[in-house]
Amino acid sequence: MTHLALQENNPDINDQLQLLVADGMSQVDRLIDEYLKSDIPLIEQIAKHIIYSGGKRLRPSLVVLASLTYGDVSAATVALAAAVEFIHTATLLHDDVIDESDMRRGKNSAHKIWGNTAAILVGDYLFARAFELMVKTGNLHVLDILSKTSAIITAGEVRQLVESHSLDLTVESCLEIMGAKTSALFGAACQAGSLVAGASIEQAQSMYTYGYNLGLIFQISDDILDYCSQDTSRGKVPGDDFREGKITLPLVYAYRDASDDDRELIHRTFVESDQCAGDFEAVRTMINRNQGFETSRQLAENLIVLAKQEIRLVDRNKDLLVGLLDECLNRYK
Amino acid sequence: MTHLALQENNPDINDQLQLLVADGMSQVDRLIDEYLKSDIPLIEQIAKHIIYSGGKRLRPSLVVLASLTYGDVSAATVALAAAVEFIHTATLLHDDVIDESDMRRGKNSAHKIWGNTAAILVGDYLFARAFELMVKTGNLHVLDILSKTSAIITAGEVRQLVESHSLDLTVESCLEIMGAKTSALFGAACQAGSLVAGASIEQAQSMYTYGYNLGLIFQISDDILDYCSQDTSRGKVPGDDFREGKITLPLVYAYRDASDDDRELIHRTFVESDQCAGDFEAVRTMINRNQGFETSRQLAENLIVLAKQEIRLVDRNKDLLVGLLDECLNRYK
Repeated sequence: MTHLALQENNPDINDQLQLLVADGMSQVDRLIDEYLKSDIPLIEQIAKHIIYSGGKRLRPSLVVLASLTYGDVSAATVALAAAVEFIHTATLLHDDVIDESDMRRGKNSAHKIWGNTAAILVGDYLFARAFELMVKTGNLHVLDILSKTSAIITAGEVRQLVESHSLDLTVESCLEIMGAKTSALFGAACQAGSLVAGASIEQAQSMYTYGYNLGLIFQISDDILDYCSQDTSRGKVPGDDFREGKITLPLVYAYRDASDDDRELIHRTFVESDQCAGDFEAVRTMINRNQGFETSRQLAENLIVLAKQEIRLVDRNKDLLVGLLDECLNRYK
Repeated sequence: MTHLALQENNPDINDQLQLLVADGMSQVDRLIDEYLKSDIPLIEQIAKHIIYSGGKRLRPSLVVLASLTYGDVSAATVALAAAVEFIHTATLLHDDVIDESDMRRGKNSAHKIWGNTAAILVGDYLFARAFELMVKTGNLHVLDILSKTSAIITAGEVRQLVESHSLDLTVESCLEIMGAKTSALFGAACQAGSLVAGASIEQAQSMYTYGYNLGLIFQISDDILDYCSQDTSRGKVPGDDFREGKITLPLVYAYRDASDDDRELIHRTFVESDQCAGDFEAVRTMINRNQGFETSRQLAENLIVLAKQEIRLVDRNKDLLVGLLDECLNRYK
C-alpha cells in the first residue's frame, strides 16, 4: 500500500515521510485488518471497499508522525491511528450518501453498489469500532479530544448543508466549515499522536494548531483542484463541487469582487442549479479573473507561515513537518 | 415528563419506579438539555424533536435504577444515562431513514420533515456527543462496554437488513438480531449503571444479563403488539412490520408449523411484497392459529425466569426489578 503519495511534486518529502512512518503504518494496517473482520460478510465487504480504495492514509500517518516527533510508536499510537482512519472512513461513507456521489476515488461509491442503508449502517459501525480502538489507548484525554472532534466534524457537515448553497456565505464561515469538516481531525490526529508519545499539553496543543492549519491548506488545495486539476488519476472528476452547487472558498472570494454579470452567472448556476454545457469553464474563468484561486492560494501561504511558527520549538522531524505543508499546497500545481 | 409510563397495567410498579428514579432523571434531563444546545439551530431542532417526542426514557431510567441498586446516583450515572439515551436516539434517527418510516411516536419522523441528510448527520452528532458524555464518567471500563455495544447494535442492524426478509430466518438468528439491536443496550445500561455505583464485575455482569433479557422481553412484546395492539395511543400503527416485510419472532414460529397454504400466504406477502386489503388480518389469524404469539410469549416467560435468577442476590430494589420484567411482557395484554 502506498502511504502519503500525495502527488509527485516533491518525491523527497514523500519518500522521507513514507520511510519514517512505514513501520508504524504496517502495524496500523494490521490492526485495521483485524478490526474490519466481522461475522457479517456485508460489513467486512463494504468497509474494505472503502478502506482499501486507494486513500492516502494521510490522517493515520499524521498520528504516527506526531508520535515519532515526541517519542516512539506505541500500541496506543497504532490504535489511535486506526481509530482516526475509521472515523474518516465513516464520514466518507455518510458523505457519499448525503452528496449522492456515485464515485469515490475512481471507484463506484459504497452507497451506489450496496444502497444507502448499508452505507449508513457500515459508517455507524466503523464509528463505533473507532471508539473501541480509542478505549484501547487507555487515555481519557485522547478519548475526550477525539469524541469532541467527531461532534465538531458532524456539526460542520450540518453547517455545510445549511449554508454552503447560499451566496451569503462569508470567507469566515467558509473557513469555519472547512475547519470543522476537515481540519479538526487533522489537528486531533497530530495532538493525540503526540500526547500518547509523551508530549506536554502545550506541545500537543501546538501540534493541534499545526495539524489544523495543514488540514485547511489541504482543503483549500482540494477546492482549487476541483476547478483546476488536469489530473484524473486521483479518481476525482473536476467540477464535482460545481455540479453539486457547493460554494467553496475560491468562489466566495471571486463573488466578493465580481461584476453584476459574473454574479448573475454564479446565481444561475449555483443558486438556481441551472447549468448548461460550457458553464463550468465559464465559472472557472470567472473565478480566475476575480482572483478567487490566487487569493485562496495566498491564504494557504499565510497559513503555512502560522503553522511553521507553531512547530518552531519541535526538535525532531521539523523539516518533514514543514515540507508536508508545502506539499499539501503545491499538489495542485 | 413522564418516565417509564410503559402502560397502565400495573400502576404500582410504574409509580414506584418513577418515584425511585425521579431525582436522578431530572438531573439526566438537565444534562440532555445542556448537550443538545448547539450553535447550529438545525441540530438542536432535530435532536429536540426526537428526544422530546414522548419516548419513555426507559434506557436511561435503567441506568439510574442500576446505580441506585448498588449505590448512589453520581455525576457518572447521570452522564452515562444521558449518553445511553443519545445512542438510542441516534439509532432511531438512522432507523427511520433506513426503514423510510414516515411516523415516529405519532409524529412525523425527522427524515420526513428535514430530509435524510439532516437525519443522518444529527444521528452522527448525537452519537459523538454520547461519547463525549461517556468520557465525562472517567471510567474506561464503561467506555469499553458502551463502545462495544454501539458496534453490536449496528452489526445487528446490518444483519437484520440482510436476513430479516428471508424465510430461512431461524428462531436462533431472530433472537440474535433482537439481542444485538435492542437487548445489548438494555444490558449495557444495567451493567454500566451498576459499575459506576460500585458494583463488582460479577454483580455488574449479572445486571447485564438481567438487562439483556429484559430487552428481549421488551422486543418480543413489541413484535406481538405490532400485530395485536388495539391501542393507537403509543403512536405506533399496528402492522408496521408486516407492511415493511420484516420477519419477526411470531412469524418465524408460525412459519415453522405452517401448512402449505399458510406458507404460500407468508411467501406472497413477505417475500414477494404482494400485499392486498385483508392480508394483514389474514396473516395475524394465521400466526395465531400456528401459535406464533403464544410460543413467543412462552419464550418471554422463560426469559423472565432466567432474569429473576440473575438478580436473586441483589439486596435493593429486587421487587422493582422483578416487577419491571412482568410489566414489559404484559403491556400487550
